[in-house]
Amino acid sequence: MLLCDIGNSFAKFYDGKELKRIPITQIKQYRRQKVCFINVNPKVEKLLEEFENWINLEQYITLDTSYKGLGVDRKALCWGVEEGVIVDAGSAITVDVMEKGRHKGGFIIPGIRFLQRDFAEISSRLAIDTLQEVDLTHLPQNTLSAISYGIIKPIVLAIKQFDMRIYITGGDGELLHHYIPEALYDPLLLFKHLEKLVQRKGLC
Amino acid sequence: MLLCDIGNSFAKFYDGKELKRIPITQIKQYRRQKVCFINVNPKVEKLLEEFENWINLEQYITLDTSYKGLGVDRKALCWGVEEGVIVDAGSAITVDVMEKGRHKGGFIIPGIRFLQRDFAEISSRLAIDTLQEVDLTHLPQNTLSAISYGIIKPIVLAIKQFDMRIYITGGDGELLHHYIPEALYDPLLLFKHLEKLVQRKGLC
Repeated sequence: MLLCDIGNSFAKFYDGKELKRIPITQIKQYRRQKVCFINVNPKVEKLLEEFENWINLEQYITLDTSYKGLGVDRKALCWGVEEGVIVDAGSAITVDVMEKGRHKGGFIIPGIRFLQRDFAEISSRLAIDTLQEVDLTHLPQNTLSAISYGIIKPIVLAIKQFDMRIYITGGDGELLHHYIPEALYDPLLLFKHLEKLVQRKGLC
Repeated sequence: MLLCDIGNSFAKFYDGKELKRIPITQIKQYRRQKVCFINVNPKVEKLLEEFENWINLEQYITLDTSYKGLGVDRKALCWGVEEGVIVDAGSAITVDVMEKGRHKGGFIIPGIRFLQRDFAEISSRLAIDTLQEVDLTHLPQNTLSAISYGIIKPIVLAIKQFDMRIYITGGDGELLHHYIPEALYDPLLLFKHLEKLVQRKGLC
């Protein structure tokens, strides 16, 4: 079984063992294979309709929610979670809350790389190459720490405001997990949910 | 007495009644007047030395702190505050903590307009013209609210994490005050501190 998550620039494929990330423009090489996918990229919708062996999983992902316009990737991440805060830390950081199997709502924060770039544009004195490791329990005592703390601490507080188990995934997931060690970090969270969905529905 | 706060693009003048904001390039028109100023702009340092009647207040602002490289504007905002969190919400949002008359440290968050612009660059689906008024006690139920909440809530949590009186100033101060109504909001906070300093030291 081949699973695929199509984003705006890249498509990720997962065969149950390995994760492969390829540019969207190259997905055609998989067109003859049997693939179960989700897609948030409107530009490839037409193309995907031509791939006869590809199954769009969106129709099978049902989520009890009042949220209007929840992306299928966020839906899939929440799917099957009974209780918890689900964080996908990518170019945007999405935070969704599940309570008694129901999606209670969620919010979006700019991703860490965007926040870092903001500082460079505000003033050259605030430009930093890499985030510094910071102690979030102590107030910063210099500019470099003040910026790293100012990026990480608000995000951490926003995620931890709910007294619930926290699930983290996404490109910056490992970094966030470092500051929220009690969270469950799994870079394959989305694919594990899709895998379970596919098994339950007897697809692929 | 004329007070002046020189930033990177603009200089603000305050005569005890009115606040005037002019582009840096136009400060020469005040060169003959008696002005007490602070300056964070290295580009005009040389020019200011030529203004014989101008007094740089930086030398008079003493602050008990371990923080290295604290800007004179942040120093002036903290100066004279015995206890509290001091927030200057401009293109960057600076947050400083004073405890028993000592500066305990501080941090910097990208300003609200930069955060808003980040979303537009992450995806066109996340581009918003203006922040929506949001209820921070309820989880958002659509994209527009999710973005506004994702901008405001982390900042508010970072400011409110200390159980202390909060002082807010700066261009986005009014917006933040709306979400932290218990805070003291004063757009003239910096100039009031400079006024007190000048009186105490018998300057200008």
